[in-house]
Amino acid sequence: MTRHPRFVVFEGPEGAGKTTQIARLAARIAGEALLTREPGGTRGGEAVRAALLNPDAAWSPLAEALLMNAARDAHLREVVMPALDAGKTVLCDRFADSTEAYQGGGGGLPTETVNALRRWVCPVEPGLTLIFDLPVKEGLARASARGAADRFEAKGRAYHEAVRGRFLAIAQRPARVLIDARGTVEAVESRIQEAVSAHAPRLLTPLP
Amino acid sequence: MTRHPRFVVFEGPEGAGKTTQIARLAARIAGEALLTREPGGTRGGEAVRAALLNPDAAWSPLAEALLMNAARDAHLREVVMPALDAGKTVLCDRFADSTEAYQGGGGGLPTETVNALRRWVCPVEPGLTLIFDLPVKEGLARASARGAADRFEAKGRAYHEAVRGRFLAIAQRPARVLIDARGTVEAVESRIQEAVSAHAPRLLTPLP
Repeated sequence: MTRHPRFVVFEGPEGAGKTTQIARLAARIAGEALLTREPGGTRGGEAVRAALLNPDAAWSPLAEALLMNAARDAHLREVVMPALDAGKTVLCDRFADSTEAYQGGGGGLPTETVNALRRWVCPVEPGLTLIFDLPVKEGLARASARGAADRFEAKGRAYHEAVRGRFLAIAQRPARVLIDARGTVEAVESRIQEAVSAHAPRLLTPLP
Repeated sequence: MTRHPRFVVFEGPEGAGKTTQIARLAARIAGEALLTREPGGTRGGEAVRAALLNPDAAWSPLAEALLMNAARDAHLREVVMPALDAGKTVLCDRFADSTEAYQGGGGGLPTETVNALRRWVCPVEPGLTLIFDLPVKEGLARASARGAADRFEAKGRAYHEAVRGRFLAIAQRPARVLIDARGTVEAVESRIQEAVSAHAPRLLTPLP
């Protein structure tokens, strides 16, 4: 398993502010940065994303994990790896930790299955993963304030508590940092700057 | 691994006449028969089928296998298992042997990966699989006579030879019968009747 120092992943629940923060961090990156997200970013991946989020489909946690990993494979080969090979910093909204948290933690898919898929699909692992954490009630309120609940948001409180629990466990592993996502955008931004300065200082433009 | 005696699968290349023959066999089945096909048959599965056959997508053999198995999971849980549980005979156009032949034989995906996916996804295996065999040149000519080549048909001769070779190997395993798909529709139909009479006689309406 190879960690790539210029591959940075943002993880955590819907409504935690990942999209806002990823754009703010991009502005601070030295050199060229690519912002991307899972499971989309490729033509095939966007089709898979639409199928996954369709509230009429009844995917099992196993099928969800297979679809996510098919999109991940395309996204890695077509988008992430070429950008890393070209010397860019890649900032990615969600990666394999999300599959473990949602389909494993939330959906009950065995860890053996989650890990086998990860081994098959990922030629590279992130050098740094920022795991946004927020009380479930607060995340769901923020997400539903944005519009209609999609299939994942509609899964209910216990599911999201299990997802949060798994993210908290994952955050204890190497190359992860837990980010408290409560408070103002500026407060969260400064926590992220601090984490990146501590764990991946070479990625940032030096302050004037 | 459980084989279900009322679960009958048709395998083999495009252009071998599976669709025609499955309809003819259905008319001879005693009791209620369900005709279905992979990877479609469910709302989510049809979306996956469209993504897979899109000539602009660049899926790896691994991603293809993950997508096929996600659709298979939905198809089994939503269509095949409920029909078997209701006492119907299920005639299915393609199943897990196709993943082994196309992504394993044609695409070079390791057998370990193909087998793990099959174990995870399939709660039941077919009681009888009819594997249609045809020289590659003849199958491709028949398929292209029907219209534009899709992504699989466009893969070239060597790929399809490898697929055929794997299907021939699979046909040696238990609960499979190789069907020579050359000749007239009536000739192939009588070979199928013979195979079903020999291996699953209870499925057929008794002759008057």
